Amino acid sequence: MSDYLTEENSADTVNARMGKSTNPRLRRVMHSMVEHLHAFIKDVEPTQDEWEVAIDFLTRTGQISSDRRQEYILLSDVLGVSMLVDAINHRRPDGATENTVFGPFHVDGAPRRSMGDSISLDGKGELCLYTGRVIDLDGQPIAGATVDVWSDNADGYYDVQQPGEQPEWNNRGVFTTGADGSYRFVGIKPVSYPIPNDGPVGQMLEKVERHPWRPAHMHFLVSADGHEQIVTHIFVAGDTYLQSDAVFGVKDSLIVKYRRMPDADTPWSAEFDFVMKPV
Amino acid sequence: MSDYLTEENSADTVNARMGKSTNPRLRRVMHSMVEHLHAFIKDVEPTQDEWEVAIDFLTRTGQISSDRRQEYILLSDVLGVSMLVDAINHRRPDGATENTVFGPFHVDGAPRRSMGDSISLDGKGELCLYTGRVIDLDGQPIAGATVDVWSDNADGYYDVQQPGEQPEWNNRGVFTTGADGSYRFVGIKPVSYPIPNDGPVGQMLEKVERHPWRPAHMHFLVSADGHEQIVTHIFVAGDTYLQSDAVFGVKDSLIVKYRRMPDADTPWSAEFDFVMKPV
Repeated sequence: MSDYLTEENSADTVNARMGKSTNPRLRRVMHSMVEHLHAFIKDVEPTQDEWEVAIDFLTRTGQISSDRRQEYILLSDVLGVSMLVDAINHRRPDGATENTVFGPFHVDGAPRRSMGDSISLDGKGELCLYTGRVIDLDGQPIAGATVDVWSDNADGYYDVQQPGEQPEWNNRGVFTTGADGSYRFVGIKPVSYPIPNDGPVGQMLEKVERHPWRPAHMHFLVSADGHEQIVTHIFVAGDTYLQSDAVFGVKDSLIVKYRRMPDADTPWSAEFDFVMKPV
Repeated sequence: MSDYLTEENSADTVNARMGKSTNPRLRRVMHSMVEHLHAFIKDVEPTQDEWEVAIDFLTRTGQISSDRRQEYILLSDVLGVSMLVDAINHRRPDGATENTVFGPFHVDGAPRRSMGDSISLDGKGELCLYTGRVIDLDGQPIAGATVDVWSDNADGYYDVQQPGEQPEWNNRGVFTTGADGSYRFVGIKPVSYPIPNDGPVGQMLEKVERHPWRPAHMHFLVSADGHEQIVTHIFVAGDTYLQSDAVFGVKDSLIVKYRRMPDADTPWSAEFDFVMKPV
């Protein structure tokens, strides 16, 4: 019997090489990764040329990444891995608001604004009044909760994607709930937009006949002492891409009907309550 | 019932998104990859922080790669994937010489040399006479076979790793067998050396308590009309790292006893026959 790597023993041979004092969690993750990776290889039996295509894809996905672009997060997103990891880490009781992907466009330190203020600073798009409450699982208001919101502008770009073109902090703001747990601000009715699709991930999507679009959404990061933070979006009901979000971020419970407001200052309104679970 | 991604349906939801006219082979590979990737995630349930460590590792592995360094091939090597893919693509009948990893140090266009010539040009190391035959499965000699050989020098570096320091084409040569299928050249008794371990892959090896060393070996690329090319090494019997080659390249059949030659021009000799299978 050979101790050397064969088709039959390959994963076990690699895993047997790990040291006995390796961090147990790392050991567990590496073992599982090697087993699944080798099972995948044995299932598809790649040719040498196919292996080279994979090496090249993985290399280019790293090389196009920079301070301003993270192509591996994008890859994780379009393969459903980001949403799966998020789901695993945020199992919540019925009634609690569900999470969705954080996305790459949040910026720490957005301006604190007063209830009712507008976050839309570029005059583009259709204004929308956002209202709702932050409550706990018993329906009790959570006072002093932080509601951090951000969205693209009417052209489909976040301010950080167009520095110098959009006003700083356009479509961003941080609000704090009062005693009744309510929040209220003016933003725009967001628009759907494509994820960056000029790199290896975009090429992959094209090869498997998938589009790069995300349905329109407003981001929320809701935090309150003693409660699990909520990272989520609300999606605009009726959007073309709800059923085919490029990053699989949509959940039924997060789709909101935007209502026409013919006689109000804003042509639209959207209402959503955030239900937090205790930590 | 939701059509959206959940923990339960995640791989199927991602795979259902692929277009109907996608290249069937790509479709098959992507389906399998997504299934195994999601199964791995569900098995280990990474935290958000662990997911970030993985994204960072994959990104850095691409970014350190260049024209002179391919860290993703190194990753494939140390995870046993390169050897597994090679094994799958080169299943050979009993008696045929086995393949092993090609490695990154072959250079096309090495000088054609005459039988008996030395490939060692730097005067370093212990000389060794390499002899043997190229034969078919019936033991018949294969005339006109090309035997392309390369090794590190006595300091453990290939010439391309030390441009300007080593003579060009040091420890490289291409020989052609005569009517009796035999070959004969002088090289050095090669030495073990570490794979590049100053990047993400080296860091990973250290975390799982693996060393980066490869046992000493001479590379051979043997080609002949009508026969499947052999990409292999011969390993020096007794090497410290035979049981723990960092890239899992060793096979029993490729270990050769280097013999002392007290009265010859070269202090060592090594003999190996290459047995080719028809294409």
